[in-house]
Amino acid sequence: MARIWSTELGAYAGQPVELAGWLHRVRRLSQLSFLILRDGQGLAQVVVEDPAQVEQLAQLPAETVVRVRGQAVHVPAAPGGVEVHAPHVEVIALPVGPPPFDLFRPQLKAQLPTILDHAAVALRHPRRRALHLLAAASAAGYRQTLQAHGFVEIFTPKLVGSATEGGANVFAVDYLGRPAYLAQSPQLYKQIMVGVYERVFEIGPVFRAEPHDTPRHLNEFVSLDFEMGFIDDHTTVMAMLTAVLRGMLAAVQEQAEHALRLLDLVLPAVPAVIPQVHFLEAQRMIAEVTGEDLAGEPDLAPAHERWLGEWAQRTYGSDFLFVVGYPMAKRPFYTHPEPERPACSNSFDLLFRGLELVTGGQRLHRYADYLAALAAVGQSPEPLGGYLEAFAHGMPPHGGCALSLERWVARLVGAANIREAALFPRDLNRLSP
Amino acid sequence: MARIWSTELGAYAGQPVELAGWLHRVRRLSQLSFLILRDGQGLAQVVVEDPAQVEQLAQLPAETVVRVRGQAVHVPAAPGGVEVHAPHVEVIALPVGPPPFDLFRPQLKAQLPTILDHAAVALRHPRRRALHLLAAASAAGYRQTLQAHGFVEIFTPKLVGSATEGGANVFAVDYLGRPAYLAQSPQLYKQIMVGVYERVFEIGPVFRAEPHDTPRHLNEFVSLDFEMGFIDDHTTVMAMLTAVLRGMLAAVQEQAEHALRLLDLVLPAVPAVIPQVHFLEAQRMIAEVTGEDLAGEPDLAPAHERWLGEWAQRTYGSDFLFVVGYPMAKRPFYTHPEPERPACSNSFDLLFRGLELVTGGQRLHRYADYLAALAAVGQSPEPLGGYLEAFAHGMPPHGGCALSLERWVARLVGAANIREAALFPRDLNRLSP
Repeated sequence: MARIWSTELGAYAGQPVELAGWLHRVRRLSQLSFLILRDGQGLAQVVVEDPAQVEQLAQLPAETVVRVRGQAVHVPAAPGGVEVHAPHVEVIALPVGPPPFDLFRPQLKAQLPTILDHAAVALRHPRRRALHLLAAASAAGYRQTLQAHGFVEIFTPKLVGSATEGGANVFAVDYLGRPAYLAQSPQLYKQIMVGVYERVFEIGPVFRAEPHDTPRHLNEFVSLDFEMGFIDDHTTVMAMLTAVLRGMLAAVQEQAEHALRLLDLVLPAVPAVIPQVHFLEAQRMIAEVTGEDLAGEPDLAPAHERWLGEWAQRTYGSDFLFVVGYPMAKRPFYTHPEPERPACSNSFDLLFRGLELVTGGQRLHRYADYLAALAAVGQSPEPLGGYLEAFAHGMPPHGGCALSLERWVARLVGAANIREAALFPRDLNRLSP
Repeated sequence: MARIWSTELGAYAGQPVELAGWLHRVRRLSQLSFLILRDGQGLAQVVVEDPAQVEQLAQLPAETVVRVRGQAVHVPAAPGGVEVHAPHVEVIALPVGPPPFDLFRPQLKAQLPTILDHAAVALRHPRRRALHLLAAASAAGYRQTLQAHGFVEIFTPKLVGSATEGGANVFAVDYLGRPAYLAQSPQLYKQIMVGVYERVFEIGPVFRAEPHDTPRHLNEFVSLDFEMGFIDDHTTVMAMLTAVLRGMLAAVQEQAEHALRLLDLVLPAVPAVIPQVHFLEAQRMIAEVTGEDLAGEPDLAPAHERWLGEWAQRTYGSDFLFVVGYPMAKRPFYTHPEPERPACSNSFDLLFRGLELVTGGQRLHRYADYLAALAAVGQSPEPLGGYLEAFAHGMPPHGGCALSLERWVARLVGAANIREAALFPRDLNRLSP
């Protein structure tokens, strides 16, 4: 007999079945008992009536790996409408003791650091398992949408020869006796690849040596990056991003439907056109409401982003808001200025429920502009030679953006801490498991 | 007028069109001239008849970014059957000089180190561009096949707290003042995740601090990993891998058809059942032929793998060959022994045209077995606590394998050097671009 998934049980009513998985729970009632089996996809209810067998199963620790053969029976009151009767239970692997917390409870009863310390067990909890399925489905939707628009997937190196983009927040590596660094983003490589395929994307890890200990930062996260050529300006990128967000949500709805139900989650709607506000106008509104003097401030504070999120919800009924035109002063050297107002940039942030989710914009594309921009920030063009060569040999107007997968998932489920959205988060204090 | 791709030109005969891309070449003939335009997807032929315009275009360096508006005309002799007449050519970006090599020649006329130094331009060559499309399509086929078999995509950390798997060939990172390492593989994490989803896969970078300078090694490469639970033994993994290879080749055939034609490539066939040979039997055959004394040798030399590849081709007409039962001595601590012959292992290598492409096998799944295995190699279980916890709390028999994307592509196209199959390879001497 071939093993079936717990989620397939509904199709087998009236037939003998074989299931396998983990002993999620034994519930002893007076007349009969239930063995709840958890496999890689869901839960199945197994009815045990023989008192001797109940006694035997009750001795097994939770998370015992078992194989169950029995009869699938249609029972309207059972979860999913079908349960297993007259089971034969075989133990495949016996735990050395009880798990550090009860996995059968609706929520894990432990503090986040404890949950993360015991990730190998905690991730088995149905809610945590469901949450991480949202990440897989989102990544799939991101890819599908971009591939449908002619984007090519690329794999660029994470070990780089020079700390090119920021300087301070980069991890140093001993590279066979030479200094190397971990890539903070695939930015420079994806721009080079616009010269090759015009439209490229990458899903991969990026590294930030920021000694912050906040609920919003990770030192390693999964970055979803795309970059495209022959754009009008940053608004072409914003339109593509809007399509991508819609594709990500559609994939989550389709591929993680069961997880959404388990998490009791309703996905946000992406408006046909996501509302946008200029950075200077956003500052003006916030100053007017709060009385703060924001003149000359080159960025928005988290509280300002929250206010804008509420404003977008109130004004447009939208969970999403583009803020465009950030001051050049705070944007990286490759940023393209606004043609009419060169202190501002052809860039954007996308706020999702009042938190920055995506950063993007138009990049410089002329070689001379790069030399000038680097000179302006006092950076030598020399270590960037292999990157600047792309611009020396013809690059079209182009732009792109980057989205953190963990921040997206955390915001989607309303997690208070981004660490909940990483399988094995890396932070100031955490390097294992 | 909306811009179209060069590959769409065939559908526009008789209509005005707008193309954009790079000036790939200007061919001056006596009566008329051709401008060959390269965009992200292909090439288009533009006919220029006006002598003044020909003169003007001939002044433009190769790789000038241009927009071309003209009339699409059906001409049987043109590549693809349609070319552009009466063009208006607008320069979008002017290179600062000619490219380091001619991109219009069938092959790049330069040595590999020069090609890699100038990757930003060299990758624009149609053949190199086609080669890297095979990587994207292969990765897509890998994912599609595994997702269809219920595998969940995971993203595991590349910064790890202890050098767990080998020791010597691991890169050290300064992690905010603490020592950390770059993951040599997602092995330990994907095993943990078998306890969560049973079937998982990851496509991501791995890092090997091997000071080798060979045509077969990279210090960073893309690893395609999967791991699955409730297997019989390593043969369950081998059967899944066979399906995955078939899916990868189907995706390449479907998604990179144009690239295959350009590279003049015929894909290998995957036999219904890939032939296999036991390690000891392979040694016996090789010893018989070569007269070498291989008794006690724990691994196969590259020459042995080549011999076996030829043998598989000769005997079974297969480009693929499984070698099973490698000695435990050379396999990592988590390897499951052969039940009947515990000096050998339930492991395999897949040879593709005489080169090791995939390594995999069954892993230990009992906690006590891990403690014994670590003790046997003199390794402390302490730094592996977060990994061993998975086995302490119930793990089914499981196994998986890992495939290097660059090695796969290199072997597929018959590249002499694996560096050709990485966009921006990392080796003993190369950290940029």
